[in-house]
This record gives sequence, structure tokens and C-alpha cells, in this order.
Amino acid sequence: MERIREWISREAVVLGPEFLRVDGILNHRIDPAFISLVGEQLAIQFADAGANCVLTAEAAGNIVAYELARRLGIRALYAKKGKASTMIRPLVRTVTSPTKGTTTELAISSDYMGSQDRVIIVDDFLYQGLTSAALADMVVEAGGTLVGFGFVIEKAFAHGRDVLQCFGVPIASLATIESMNPEDGSIVFSEGRA
Amino acid sequence: MERIREWISREAVVLGPEFLRVDGILNHRIDPAFISLVGEQLAIQFADAGANCVLTAEAAGNIVAYELARRLGIRALYAKKGKASTMIRPLVRTVTSPTKGTTTELAISSDYMGSQDRVIIVDDFLYQGLTSAALADMVVEAGGTLVGFGFVIEKAFAHGRDVLQCFGVPIASLATIESMNPEDGSIVFSEGRA
Repeated sequence: MERIREWISREAVVLGPEFLRVDGILNHRIDPAFISLVGEQLAIQFADAGANCVLTAEAAGNIVAYELARRLGIRALYAKKGKASTMIRPLVRTVTSPTKGTTTELAISSDYMGSQDRVIIVDDFLYQGLTSAALADMVVEAGGTLVGFGFVIEKAFAHGRDVLQCFGVPIASLATIESMNPEDGSIVFSEGRA
Repeated sequence: MERIREWISREAVVLGPEFLRVDGILNHRIDPAFISLVGEQLAIQFADAGANCVLTAEAAGNIVAYELARRLGIRALYAKKGKASTMIRPLVRTVTSPTKGTTTELAISSDYMGSQDRVIIVDDFLYQGLTSAALADMVVEAGGTLVGFGFVIEKAFAHGRDVLQCFGVPIASLATIESMNPEDGSIVFSEGRA
């Protein structure tokens, strides 16, 4: 985890007290060495979860979900933005992005999620937890079993963890940020939580 | 390539004469074994291209781009849908999806693409070639060097290859579809082109 915190400290840019630019390594330009380390660490967290599916929301979580799924030897699934015409009886939730202020419809084709599935939900950030809670809700609606949440970066000050606790599964974050200072660019991490 | 054609024949569903559902392996639910094979084959195609960046458009191409970049040991970059507030002087193109009929603004932060970059553009499908042409145009605008295009599936009947020829670089497709029949679900492949 310390290597991940160091990587973020070196590459990320603090744009505001709650706003961190990580698009040089994680969600626009992708550094495979960083994603590999992220996948390795998340795979350690969920090695014994008996999961058969990693679920995320398009698009920022896709590559992290894939890398974790690849390492665990299971499928990845990403909820798509908007119902596609190819979907069969899609599961749908509408979520609002607290960072962008936009509303997005997330959809999962119901033939890809069912009672046989044991699901890890992952994303790049845990902020307010609204997107992950919506995904968890879709897993429950489909009759699947949620086995955990995994995040690269948790913004602890936004208390998203409190929103996800009700699902009663482990919540793992590889880097937990207590506060950020846009004036000097500093990031205060806690030791991380799992 | 034959293994990829077999995989597509087995897992894909023909929904119309020009419309193939591959969201069980490639662009909704992801089978890491299939993506791994795709990455391996694209890496062979571009082993000697001297590329330092794999570029795609959010979101369907992200995982293929990442897997290729991981194998080549270089960065991946995906043009985001819409300008993000974190972007610096974004390069922008507006593209229309011929399958969805929707218009999307694709944006790349200009600090992640420049004259030092040698770029492979990849995507899940080559259909009419409009998105890939827009990405190629952005590479040229940024002063970068385009070194090739790589696709998992080329719909040869839509002649997207003709749109991309003007860029004067290799165009590799792992599976080339000549025609599809929604009545019996059959797919006619050609031997592929590179």
C-alpha cells in the first residue's frame, strides 16, 4: 500500500480540497505499471472471497476491474452508461456524479448477473459511495451475492464508507486520503483501511 | 487469428446483417482469456512499430488498449467522452456513432499527446472508421506520429478500411467479417487482413 501512496503523491495533482487529478496514471492516460500494482494489491485483498465476477461502472473503473479479474481468473462486468439495444431486460439505476454534477443511467444486461454470481465491486475512487451503492443494489436485485468493495483511492473526508457499510461486506481501499491542500499540493494519507 | 474467429463464432450473437452482439466477451462482460488472446495477437502485429502509446476512445476500446499497452510495456490513453475539468487545453473531435446514432465529443488532454508520441490506435470494432479517423486526426494535430491501427473485429462490408487508408499506416484486424446472417446466426469471415 505504501508504494501506491507514494505513486499517487508523485503523480497526482491536488486541484481542490476534495478534487484530485489522477488522469495521468489511472483514468485517462493509463500507466500499466501502476494498474498492475493496483491489481496485485486488490487481488491479495480478495484472494479468499470466492468471487466469480468483478463489477464496475463505465468507464473509469473498467481497467482496474479487468486487471483484478485477470489476476483472479474470473470475468469482469461493467455497467454501461445508458441501456444498449443489445441488452436483455437490463437492470438500471440512475446515479448523480457529485464531482461532475451530471446524471447517468447505469445498465447491466440481466443475463450477465444472477443468483450464481459472487461479486466484487471496484472503482477508481470511493468518494460519496453513490455509484458503488447503486451497483451493489443491482447485484442484490439480480439475486447475486456481494462479497466486497475495492477502491484504488478513498476520500475518507466524504464518508462514502458509511454509505456502503449497510451491505455488510469488506471495503478495501489501497490509498486512503484524509485531506488535501490545493495551496501546497500536499496529500495527507491515513494508513489505509480494509 | 483462427482461435479468435472461433471464439467470436461461439460467443457472439448476430442481431442484424450489420449488427453483432459481443458484449458477453468484449464490451460489457469481459472474458480475460479472450482479451489476453486479443492482446497477444495485437502485440505480435505491432511488436516492431516502436510505439510508446496505445490510444482508443472511451469506453469499448479501453480494456483492449490497456492489454496491448501492458504487453508492449507502454502507456495507454483513452479519449474521454466530453471535456473533463481536469484537462489541459483538450484536443476535441465530435463523432457520430453509426450504430447508436448518437453524437459524442471525444477529448484528450493535450499534455498527454505530443510530438514525442508514436501512437497505435485500437478499438473493439472497425465499422465505418469514423471514430478511429477522428482519433488519428487528433494525433496529427498534436504533432504525434501515428504508427498503426488495430481492431479486434473488422466489418469489411462497411468499408471503414477505406476511410483509414489515407493515414498511410498498417491496419490490422484480428477477425474480418465479410457478412452476417441474422436468420441462421452465421458469420462469414475472410482470412483476415493486416
